[in-house]
Amino acid sequence: MAYILILNGPNLNLLGRREPEIYGSQTLSDINDSLKSAFPEAGLRFAQHNGEGELIEALHTAGFDPDCRGIAFNAGAFTHYSYAIADAIAAIPAPVVEVHMSNVHAREEFRHTSVIAPVCRGTIAGFGANSYHLAVAAILAL
Amino acid sequence: MAYILILNGPNLNLLGRREPEIYGSQTLSDINDSLKSAFPEAGLRFAQHNGEGELIEALHTAGFDPDCRGIAFNAGAFTHYSYAIADAIAAIPAPVVEVHMSNVHAREEFRHTSVIAPVCRGTIAGFGANSYHLAVAAILAL
Amino acid sequence: MAYILILNGPNLNLLGRREPEIYGSQTLSDINDSLKSAFPEAGLRFAQHNGEGELIEALHTAGFDPDCRGIAFNAGAFTHYSYAIADAIAAIPAPVVEVHMSNVHAREEFRHTSVIAPVCRGTIAGFGANSYHLAVAAILAL
Amino acid sequence: MAYILILNGPNLNLLGRREPEIYGSQTLSDINDSLKSAFPEAGLRFAQHNGEGELIEALHTAGFDPDCRGIAFNAGAFTHYSYAIADAIAAIPAPVVEVHMSNVHAREEFRHTSVIAPVCRGTIAGFGANSYHLAVAAILAL
Amino acid sequence: MAYILILNGPNLNLLGRREPEIYGSQTLSDINDSLKSAFPEAGLRFAQHNGEGELIEALHTAGFDPDCRGIAFNAGAFTHYSYAIADAIAAIPAPVVEVHMSNVHAREEFRHTSVIAPVCRGTIAGFGANSYHLAVAAILAL
Amino acid sequence: MAYILILNGPNLNLLGRREPEIYGSQTLSDINDSLKSAFPEAGLRFAQHNGEGELIEALHTAGFDPDCRGIAFNAGAFTHYSYAIADAIAAIPAPVVEVHMSNVHAREEFRHTSVIAPVCRGTIAGFGANSYHLAVAAILAL
Amino acid sequence: MAYILILNGPNLNLLGRREPEIYGSQTLSDINDSLKSAFPEAGLRFAQHNGEGELIEALHTAGFDPDCRGIAFNAGAFTHYSYAIADAIAAIPAPVVEVHMSNVHAREEFRHTSVIAPVCRGTIAGFGANSYHLAVAAILAL
Amino acid sequence: MAYILILNGPNLNLLGRREPEIYGSQTLSDINDSLKSAFPEAGLRFAQHNGEGELIEALHTAGFDPDCRGIAFNAGAFTHYSYAIADAIAAIPAPVVEVHMSNVHAREEFRHTSVIAPVCRGTIAGFGANSYHLAVAAILAL
Amino acid sequence: MAYILILNGPNLNLLGRREPEIYGSQTLSDINDSLKSAFPEAGLRFAQHNGEGELIEALHTAGFDPDCRGIAFNAGAFTHYSYAIADAIAAIPAPVVEVHMSNVHAREEFRHTSVIAPVCRGTIAGFGANSYHLAVAAILAL
Amino acid sequence: MAYILILNGPNLNLLGRREPEIYGSQTLSDINDSLKSAFPEAGLRFAQHNGEGELIEALHTAGFDPDCRGIAFNAGAFTHYSYAIADAIAAIPAPVVEVHMSNVHAREEFRHTSVIAPVCRGTIAGFGANSYHLAVAAILAL
Amino acid sequence: MAYILILNGPNLNLLGRREPEIYGSQTLSDINDSLKSAFPEAGLRFAQHNGEGELIEALHTAGFDPDCRGIAFNAGAFTHYSYAIADAIAAIPAPVVEVHMSNVHAREEFRHTSVIAPVCRGTIAGFGANSYHLAVAAILAL
Amino acid sequence: MAYILILNGPNLNLLGRREPEIYGSQTLSDINDSLKSAFPEAGLRFAQHNGEGELIEALHTAGFDPDCRGIAFNAGAFTHYSYAIADAIAAIPAPVVEVHMSNVHAREEFRHTSVIAPVCRGTIAGFGANSYHLAVAAILAL
Repeated sequence: MAYILILNGPNLNLLGRREPEIYGSQTLSDINDSLKSAFPEAGLRFAQHNGEGELIEALHTAGFDPDCRGIAFNAGAFTHYSYAIADAIAAIPAPVVEVHMSNVHAREEFRHTSVIAPVCRGTIAGFGANSYHLAVAAILAL
Repeated sequence: MAYILILNGPNLNLLGRREPEIYGSQTLSDINDSLKSAFPEAGLRFAQHNGEGELIEALHTAGFDPDCRGIAFNAGAFTHYSYAIADAIAAIPAPVVEVHMSNVHAREEFRHTSVIAPVCRGTIAGFGANSYHLAVAAILAL
Repeated sequence: MAYILILNGPNLNLLGRREPEIYGSQTLSDINDSLKSAFPEAGLRFAQHNGEGELIEALHTAGFDPDCRGIAFNAGAFTHYSYAIADAIAAIPAPVVEVHMSNVHAREEFRHTSVIAPVCRGTIAGFGANSYHLAVAAILAL
Repeated sequence: MAYILILNGPNLNLLGRREPEIYGSQTLSDINDSLKSAFPEAGLRFAQHNGEGELIEALHTAGFDPDCRGIAFNAGAFTHYSYAIADAIAAIPAPVVEVHMSNVHAREEFRHTSVIAPVCRGTIAGFGANSYHLAVAAILAL
Repeated sequence: MAYILILNGPNLNLLGRREPEIYGSQTLSDINDSLKSAFPEAGLRFAQHNGEGELIEALHTAGFDPDCRGIAFNAGAFTHYSYAIADAIAAIPAPVVEVHMSNVHAREEFRHTSVIAPVCRGTIAGFGANSYHLAVAAILAL
Repeated sequence: MAYILILNGPNLNLLGRREPEIYGSQTLSDINDSLKSAFPEAGLRFAQHNGEGELIEALHTAGFDPDCRGIAFNAGAFTHYSYAIADAIAAIPAPVVEVHMSNVHAREEFRHTSVIAPVCRGTIAGFGANSYHLAVAAILAL
Repeated sequence: MAYILILNGPNLNLLGRREPEIYGSQTLSDINDSLKSAFPEAGLRFAQHNGEGELIEALHTAGFDPDCRGIAFNAGAFTHYSYAIADAIAAIPAPVVEVHMSNVHAREEFRHTSVIAPVCRGTIAGFGANSYHLAVAAILAL
Repeated sequence: MAYILILNGPNLNLLGRREPEIYGSQTLSDINDSLKSAFPEAGLRFAQHNGEGELIEALHTAGFDPDCRGIAFNAGAFTHYSYAIADAIAAIPAPVVEVHMSNVHAREEFRHTSVIAPVCRGTIAGFGANSYHLAVAAILAL
Repeated sequence: MAYILILNGPNLNLLGRREPEIYGSQTLSDINDSLKSAFPEAGLRFAQHNGEGELIEALHTAGFDPDCRGIAFNAGAFTHYSYAIADAIAAIPAPVVEVHMSNVHAREEFRHTSVIAPVCRGTIAGFGANSYHLAVAAILAL
Repeated sequence: MAYILILNGPNLNLLGRREPEIYGSQTLSDINDSLKSAFPEAGLRFAQHNGEGELIEALHTAGFDPDCRGIAFNAGAFTHYSYAIADAIAAIPAPVVEVHMSNVHAREEFRHTSVIAPVCRGTIAGFGANSYHLAVAAILAL
Repeated sequence: MAYILILNGPNLNLLGRREPEIYGSQTLSDINDSLKSAFPEAGLRFAQHNGEGELIEALHTAGFDPDCRGIAFNAGAFTHYSYAIADAIAAIPAPVVEVHMSNVHAREEFRHTSVIAPVCRGTIAGFGANSYHLAVAAILAL
Repeated sequence: MAYILILNGPNLNLLGRREPEIYGSQTLSDINDSLKSAFPEAGLRFAQHNGEGELIEALHTAGFDPDCRGIAFNAGAFTHYSYAIADAIAAIPAPVVEVHMSNVHAREEFRHTSVIAPVCRGTIAGFGANSYHLAVAAILAL
């Protein structure tokens, strides 16, 4: 059964509690619910991990699963230094779309570099929770 | 009458003729037609300029026009060094979404820097012609 | 008939509308009027262009004109990367004074570099509209 | 019941066995015992993890717990590159004090940069096991 | 009718008036006349623009014209930062030879970087007006 | 009973499935079998982890075990940024040999830096699966 | 009684004796006399120090004096590295105008950086002794 | 008679008057009084200098005095560039503890580098006036 | 008897055998023969050395010889780091023209820097064997 | 007759006399003897040169010889800057293995960069004289 | 009466007490005595200051004194950052010779840069107290 | 028989003919003669080589010769990049003194770095031919 994985990295379990002026007041669960409502046919699945190893393994599992149409991935701060995650994305056949809620380029210097962008299919950043919606739409259109 | 401006920068008039393995075989006119079909209610308008000054003026005109809901802007190579365009974006009230057809982070080093990203509302890159569709969807959802 | 050219670069036609907390609420026209009142004998002339090519040509025209006593030039964001404009200034005999309304050194990093400063006669920055008055005074005293 | 968390990162479980000329011969358990003796009223709690994800989760749990007065945190080598841990510290309301036993500035170049210092309340480094005592005193005085 | 385009960028219309110790006392028109005399069969055409957009359009027009055998291009200061011009050169099928009258490597630091060199067929620099002659000879020999 | 640990880091569980033009078609299990055949007396043990914390703990356990003669360690992408793993290697008495199947110096820029090399006994890179064989031979010869 | 302080830093006591092709043949005393003649009502006061501590104390004294309308400050080479002087300027309520006789941007690389510019009200450079006159005019116009 | 020196550098005489949102409203004299109350037996002595030479000499005098148990030193902005002060600290046998009231790592870039940290015994930063109390406690515990 | 020296550096003796997709299939001897045919009156002489010292001595000998009209010099990889060769070129009165068969700017990063370019009369690169012909033509036209 | 060349660069003739704490007390001749004993069938040949040109020529001769199975090459300090040697390695068909006796990554900064590594088949470093044995084993296994 | 000034900067008053393994056990007074004995006719004078301002003034006084034949100057750590002292040296007609007792290039990174070297006549470093003797000899030979 | 070697590197055979405004009009032979006259007892020997390998071998031969008291070495441009020569100096027991006739710090940027200085005993630069005299005096005094 075809599905899309919505994968979130470190600290995103805090959505709604963490710096709401940047990340809004919706929780991750609220966002996931809104995605399910908006894309009832997309077979969405959801995961969140704070550890690098767990994220790598989630990418391996879905990434080699022929039922997986793609992965919408918000890697949190790992975006900026985890070459191990970048290697995992490069290794898997499923397409990965990089997602950020905030406009990372308008924040601190270290957030301007993405080590995973070169191996992702595309990037969507800056639209709050709507960034996830756009990423799902992008995967469906591939 | 509310509208969205699809603004393209230098060399994008060559779409379909220029490095089709990167940019695909659609012309800019093809892309614009497909956008009109997909968003018949959005009041789309289109412009393309090779000159920095002309782009700045197009941003000024639409950006202060209360009817303009937003600008989907592919700045081409100006993305990487035109602080004058970045100033124009910062100066106008209309929201601007940065658009790239290719995954700029997977290409040459100089394309990894965007001087306009910090003053745009968000960025969409890597989905070919569909990047424009996603950008229009993002503006409509603001 | 001897004259001084007040030359403004990109986005300065927006003065009064653009980030008034930095640039104040005077329009460029207001500033030009106040300059004419303050220096009625100086034969002031005024020009503003958003395009790099047009600025270069304005510099060429006035710069080789024996009646031109000097040019007070606010190059806007071209200040930071336009080597073509720097070459134009170096090529002309008329003295050019670099003008900025804001204190460029207290703003973003990229504004700390001026590629035109080495070929200007001097620099005046940080006094709002009064920066232009001081520049005219400086040219008259050369 | 109010408490302070003493949180240690990777390789600090080796204290007493690892490079004693830098870290001394006390084990982590010895240090924790001496802290309990010195601050019997502070309700000290102790944790040590070698993994980034586990440290992030320990910060989340204590950091949002209203009983937690503060966290004395020796992040080990994560100090120098874990933006994910820095994000976790920024996200939580409890104050975090950065602790190092050695004078990191007198060691290798890579230890001179702390990516967590900007989001900590303060830093204490260079006093061996006493660095932890001073950190607890600092938290009690906040 | 086969032809070669001699294309000159910003400030080169000033040849003969601008820093003659570097560029010599010949005007651009003198140089063009000497080229016509030396290569009467080459069908030489000539253009000069100060604007980035105009240069890009001249490259587009000649570059896709099947009658154009090649372009000898002195991009002036755009050489050092105009990625838009570099993109235009990359986009066209006609071969482009980079030309400089002066030895750019013996001048200011910023002239040591050429962003267009990687997409040109070759480079000729340092022979004064003769650089153009050598470039035409090189194109004829391709 | 004396033994040598063959320790593999993130994404190496994908060997045989991941970019075979770089890493070959052997699985990690194939490589481990061939090592056992080649060195039947060496008491080889094997482990692979995708997480930094697990690798650190594997280094601690073997590294302080007096029966461990050495560790042949392919740290994958952690090679390039994990100072926490480097600290673990520095802390343990057992010798560690850095292993890479590919010639990391002929690949992307970020793979040219190894933060663990300074604390390893030596490095072997570029011989495919044979790199592991050479590392075991090197440890046996210490 | 309202006054303006003309404050000069290291080596400026040598004016008239030091590199006259850069600094002119007027002594500091000549310049101060010409300022007094030009601005008889401004209550000008004068000081020069070669030491960092003395300059900091002069800034403290005048900077907190409610009679001081502003300080025209030529910090000499301290401009380029004295963060202690920059802190002093930031700490005082009186406005400070940075003054240089020469065009510092046309000289050695190290003179292109000003660590005090971000905390000054404005900058005037390149007009010889007239730079001081313009600075006094600028303070009077604040 | 054993004593500890509390040594303060440039601009710290302004405490209470200077940027109170960063440094608080206590004067340096208030802080010194609170230290004397808190450590009546420590034989505290106090000095403040704005000049580099005076600070170096204060370090020499106390640093070679066998009665001096240690120096709690807030070097102000000299922290970031005075290698001469660093040499003085390295030269003396008395231990020096680096003190900052603010969290220097959360402020401007230039404050992230300490040239004196490598030669100090340890560092305490970010606890306001309490930073001095902790430093005295640290020296007493050496 | 006037002559021109064609001087080749390290590895150029391999022409025809080495990476023919970059350097073509002609041997160095073929190229030298074609040069003699094309310029029978130029008194061409030929030398090739793999050692830095031998090249320096060849430059000295020809460079001070009044019969030598110039040197067409392909320094191979010494182009990028041999300041000793650059010093030799600077020391001799004969003009030296830098020659490269390939477009060095379109190849690896390290080939973009030429330490000898500043002291050569000019540069010709990218035309295969024809680069040498153009260099001889350039020397004859000096 | 198939053979392997053991090629050594500058200063390696001093082995046994030079810094024995780094390089051991064996002479180069001792090492070569032990290699001959260990690999009697490998047809080992030996060469050492202090000059760059001589090393390049040794690489050319063996590298194009169909009898040469590979080259174990310790380039000494040329490893870190000789692009001419790197070009020679790239030009020859025989495989080259980079060898170092010491762990270059644990020594001075300049030894962390290898300009020849990208064009070698693989690298072996840190095992003293055994590095050569491993390199021969690696070549035999190719 | 002709004389030579031996001028010493910060911390050099500690010679004999400070890090004797680097600076030897002679005091500054011992060195000065040995200089007087060695050069009884040179009219040697001696000064030492820890403050930048005092050193600048000593340079001014001697540097413009027609009796001063030259200055042997050990600027201590000011060598590495005091552009104010460099300006003083540039301003005076007397020749200044830079002196260091230790080999600054074999010590910490920051000691490898001298901002005063470009304006000194020459440099002598690494010979202990004999560096001063050589400097006096050098001045006498000018 | 004790001796001192005066060793000169590339291009120094041209002294007297090469850029006399920098290097003076004395030939190397003139300088050597004046050294012999000045130090008749020092057993001076002389060598000059343009090749790196020859210089390395000259350092080896003299450097291990127990009769050699020291080497005064002007490495020419090799000073700035020859790590192979630096390794040779580090390997030999005889002391080496770095010599330059010109003040290298007042010339081009690349001459400000010496890769051999860290392994020399000391440095003497800027005194023309007298630099050699001072170096011999320094060696005699060791």
